[in-house]
Amino acid sequence: MHFKTVALIGRHQDSGMDAPLRRLGQALSAAGCTILIEAETGRNTGVADFQLASYEDIGTRADLAIIMGGDGTMLAAARQLATSGVAMIGINHGRLGFITDIPLGSADEAITRVLNGAFVQDERMLLEGRVMRGDETIFSGLALNDVIINRAGRGGMIELRVECNGAFMHSQRADGLIIATPTGSTAYALSAGGPILHPQVNALVLVPVAPQTLSNRPITLPDDSVLNITIRALGRVESGASVHFDMQALSNCQEGDRIDVRRSPHRVRFLHPQGYSYFSTLRSKLNWNRMLHPWDEPDQ
Amino acid sequence: MHFKTVALIGRHQDSGMDAPLRRLGQALSAAGCTILIEAETGRNTGVADFQLASYEDIGTRADLAIIMGGDGTMLAAARQLATSGVAMIGINHGRLGFITDIPLGSADEAITRVLNGAFVQDERMLLEGRVMRGDETIFSGLALNDVIINRAGRGGMIELRVECNGAFMHSQRADGLIIATPTGSTAYALSAGGPILHPQVNALVLVPVAPQTLSNRPITLPDDSVLNITIRALGRVESGASVHFDMQALSNCQEGDRIDVRRSPHRVRFLHPQGYSYFSTLRSKLNWNRMLHPWDEPDQ
Amino acid sequence: MHFKTVALIGRHQDSGMDAPLRRLGQALSAAGCTILIEAETGRNTGVADFQLASYEDIGTRADLAIIMGGDGTMLAAARQLATSGVAMIGINHGRLGFITDIPLGSADEAITRVLNGAFVQDERMLLEGRVMRGDETIFSGLALNDVIINRAGRGGMIELRVECNGAFMHSQRADGLIIATPTGSTAYALSAGGPILHPQVNALVLVPVAPQTLSNRPITLPDDSVLNITIRALGRVESGASVHFDMQALSNCQEGDRIDVRRSPHRVRFLHPQGYSYFSTLRSKLNWNRMLHPWDEPDQ
Amino acid sequence: MHFKTVALIGRHQDSGMDAPLRRLGQALSAAGCTILIEAETGRNTGVADFQLASYEDIGTRADLAIIMGGDGTMLAAARQLATSGVAMIGINHGRLGFITDIPLGSADEAITRVLNGAFVQDERMLLEGRVMRGDETIFSGLALNDVIINRAGRGGMIELRVECNGAFMHSQRADGLIIATPTGSTAYALSAGGPILHPQVNALVLVPVAPQTLSNRPITLPDDSVLNITIRALGRVESGASVHFDMQALSNCQEGDRIDVRRSPHRVRFLHPQGYSYFSTLRSKLNWNRMLHPWDEPDQ
Repeated sequence: MHFKTVALIGRHQDSGMDAPLRRLGQALSAAGCTILIEAETGRNTGVADFQLASYEDIGTRADLAIIMGGDGTMLAAARQLATSGVAMIGINHGRLGFITDIPLGSADEAITRVLNGAFVQDERMLLEGRVMRGDETIFSGLALNDVIINRAGRGGMIELRVECNGAFMHSQRADGLIIATPTGSTAYALSAGGPILHPQVNALVLVPVAPQTLSNRPITLPDDSVLNITIRALGRVESGASVHFDMQALSNCQEGDRIDVRRSPHRVRFLHPQGYSYFSTLRSKLNWNRMLHPWDEPDQ
Repeated sequence: MHFKTVALIGRHQDSGMDAPLRRLGQALSAAGCTILIEAETGRNTGVADFQLASYEDIGTRADLAIIMGGDGTMLAAARQLATSGVAMIGINHGRLGFITDIPLGSADEAITRVLNGAFVQDERMLLEGRVMRGDETIFSGLALNDVIINRAGRGGMIELRVECNGAFMHSQRADGLIIATPTGSTAYALSAGGPILHPQVNALVLVPVAPQTLSNRPITLPDDSVLNITIRALGRVESGASVHFDMQALSNCQEGDRIDVRRSPHRVRFLHPQGYSYFSTLRSKLNWNRMLHPWDEPDQ
Repeated sequence: MHFKTVALIGRHQDSGMDAPLRRLGQALSAAGCTILIEAETGRNTGVADFQLASYEDIGTRADLAIIMGGDGTMLAAARQLATSGVAMIGINHGRLGFITDIPLGSADEAITRVLNGAFVQDERMLLEGRVMRGDETIFSGLALNDVIINRAGRGGMIELRVECNGAFMHSQRADGLIIATPTGSTAYALSAGGPILHPQVNALVLVPVAPQTLSNRPITLPDDSVLNITIRALGRVESGASVHFDMQALSNCQEGDRIDVRRSPHRVRFLHPQGYSYFSTLRSKLNWNRMLHPWDEPDQ
Repeated sequence: MHFKTVALIGRHQDSGMDAPLRRLGQALSAAGCTILIEAETGRNTGVADFQLASYEDIGTRADLAIIMGGDGTMLAAARQLATSGVAMIGINHGRLGFITDIPLGSADEAITRVLNGAFVQDERMLLEGRVMRGDETIFSGLALNDVIINRAGRGGMIELRVECNGAFMHSQRADGLIIATPTGSTAYALSAGGPILHPQVNALVLVPVAPQTLSNRPITLPDDSVLNITIRALGRVESGASVHFDMQALSNCQEGDRIDVRRSPHRVRFLHPQGYSYFSTLRSKLNWNRMLHPWDEPDQ
């Protein structure tokens, strides 16, 4: 078997998570796996049948982590496990997610197939970044989706100056700027008008949010680009700017703060059951390019 | 002469405003006009040569108000003078504004022409709106540019339900929603991807900001539409939603709050020197449709 | 009864049109209406039970025209009947159309309701235009959807100069330019990135197709605007430009040709069964703003 | 010296090309280079001082090809020289091009610097493709910018079915579809709403032209993707579809024709004088993100 020690991670705030977690753990245990349950998940769901483990333990000991929840749960776990390189697989409750692509109803069968080796591996890059004030690092983090710099509160735009590998790219006045990975290209960046980046494209995309000038356009950069963004001005934005690494946020950024973003040396390893299609997920999650009319109607 | 009593209004925070205000007032006075100076403008600039007047006085007594500043100053004055119907003319310092379209350098000549009747009138609609919590009105205001409902702070999207004349239009998850007048169509709505509405189009435009779904598109509605927007959910947005009528803001809106927006019975009257071209302003302010390449080059 | 003489018009190329046409005619006849059938429709479908009538006859004699087919059939009929002002109602075969909004399955009931007065009237503007070469008019037509000027064939862009009411708007290099009515705003203009215009907005919208410059944006103009467009250059486009008034086309336009477009004095009158909702059609035809995810999932 | 044998290539249809070509050739000759002049360039310009050479000769013998003209001239030469791998440098007449980035006025100095080794190399991918009808290849070609499939003439949309690496991506009804390289991302794909791809991103981008559905969005794919596009239907498009590999076109494509597109094994090598900035070219050529207003004005 490919995976001897399997960790279970679940969304904490979700009641009703205990039964499917317990059932999955028992099935895997019966199949000969050693089961760990992430400590907080265990405490919150009351699933006490398996050994509690911290994320650090999981990173050290597990061959596979199975995450039950939505894409948000998966994102959070991925950041915790990024440095360990443990393989991850996502099971979604209500609906398909982009990265939790196994529906709960068919989880048993899908997991069995994965344990038997019928999987495809899907490595995803992470961004690492930090916020500098003068010479001091005041925040740092990892992001699987995106780094977002935006006005923290009401009113007005912020002005950002962007450098790439030490060369000036542009200054921009906008609600914000998104630096998205391919994984993040179907999240907030898509709402802001960005293109879709296939997960295997080695690239980042910069997408402005509500930019003041008409002549902007998202730009896709090589994933080894080093970006330095300076908050040049806050205009009328009384409450300052904020920086987000996925869902971790630093508020109250000031004029002059600098945000450095680059590719993390770590990568996340997602597994999908064989037959997984990224394009199929795009179509079913986003209605991407769903045709509306049968052709036979001569419609204008 | 068309305008006997002329009020002067200036941007308060601008040092160096006193000299041009004083000079303009003296010239108009010499030409036989009675000059009022808006009280706060007078106090802040120290221009004490003319009679101080409140906005209310100006509305009652003046035939014309001349505003020196930027479009923001003009917007603020327009809301104050909206119910009076006094004609307004805008003089801009550094650069052309959309509604302050006379550069300071040619102000004397332009004002003289306007006083002699060589002007075009440009009426603009206003929006009026209120925020309801249960049966209580917790905020109300006028807007010349736009009513904006958006997430007040970091993280997540808000969900809005929009009705038009009592009929359900759509629900939408987004950073926010802009309801813009033609005047506002070249302000924030343009940044969010909205179309330009010529000032004489009797319409509103609804433009979402970073909407979650791909299948959105701005919609232009008749200006007598009555819109009711309900904040259905705040998702992960901890700090709530906010509503803006131009620059006046109500923070801390809650789930269930309703925003009613409709055309105000009042209209603002802007005057422009004869020869004014809206399209020329579009081109010079926005670089709208500025062609970049000489044709003779067979470029792809 | 509101409508004594009713004309039937059907899509010609559609086999299987005869049975529903005949059945509808017989029902209306039984209800006391005089029935006309459009001559070509009658000949093509073999429905010989009713009096054949030309479009001209229909315009003179009918109180109501019922069109069976798709939006294309309705558009064609609307142009034929535009000058007569006869009321029109559209029945669609397979699916809902924008202007053929009654499904065949519920046609009998819907028509009965309309005949009994339970309808809403929906007037739509038309564009009229002509193509000038020197002093000569080489083409003219009516359009309910749009006037489109585009490169006729492969390769390169065309350059257009646009004036509005005699004032220069802009020059633009693009694949083409669409001048759409509100009716046409959900047709080709929408594909090219234009906004939706509610049918009751008294406006036109200009939407470029694949414009060369980044700083373009659709513009909405008052519906009494008079537009003059000159084909300034054809670049590498060997086969010239073409002009379309809905589906009527003039190919082989040359440099220097001018296209004049303005609102037609005629309006088309569509009837809808009471309860008709334009927004509902937008949602069902375009998936407009269809929300994809249940809110309870904390998705990025 | 880095480059012993230098070929000169010029735009043929440009009168006045002879003097700068001759002067450049003489200067390089004086510096010790062997000079070839592309045969047609020599014949058309009458520059007879140097040895005439076919593109094949140039590919075999030259270390560097200097192209005088616009981006179109450079594209054409690049396809001719693609298999040889000869380095290329572009000199532009009137204005900066994207790939002809040396202005004629500073050409001597720039070329001298390049000859002395002060250059950066900029490799660009090419697409290769073919059009299949049944089992027969009816067209094949190389493209540095893009492969474009579009309706050949007036009226209606075409329907395409797109597969990537054998997996179904989507079907789409549109005016056309662009498959662009990073080089082509700033050409026609940009007009159609596509993102900018930095030349060093190893990716392709698919951009629809005027797609019928609202829920489309450009997608960026790894550059080793193999695309198969089938023309499923031509709708009302009487004159068929056409396929373009840069400016080489195949008209009269039919329903059922298949277009295969993949990365060419060859790459083009452009040289730029040291200090070249891609971002600077974006800003100056496209006005990309050019800020319009000084910040000090509190504009909405």
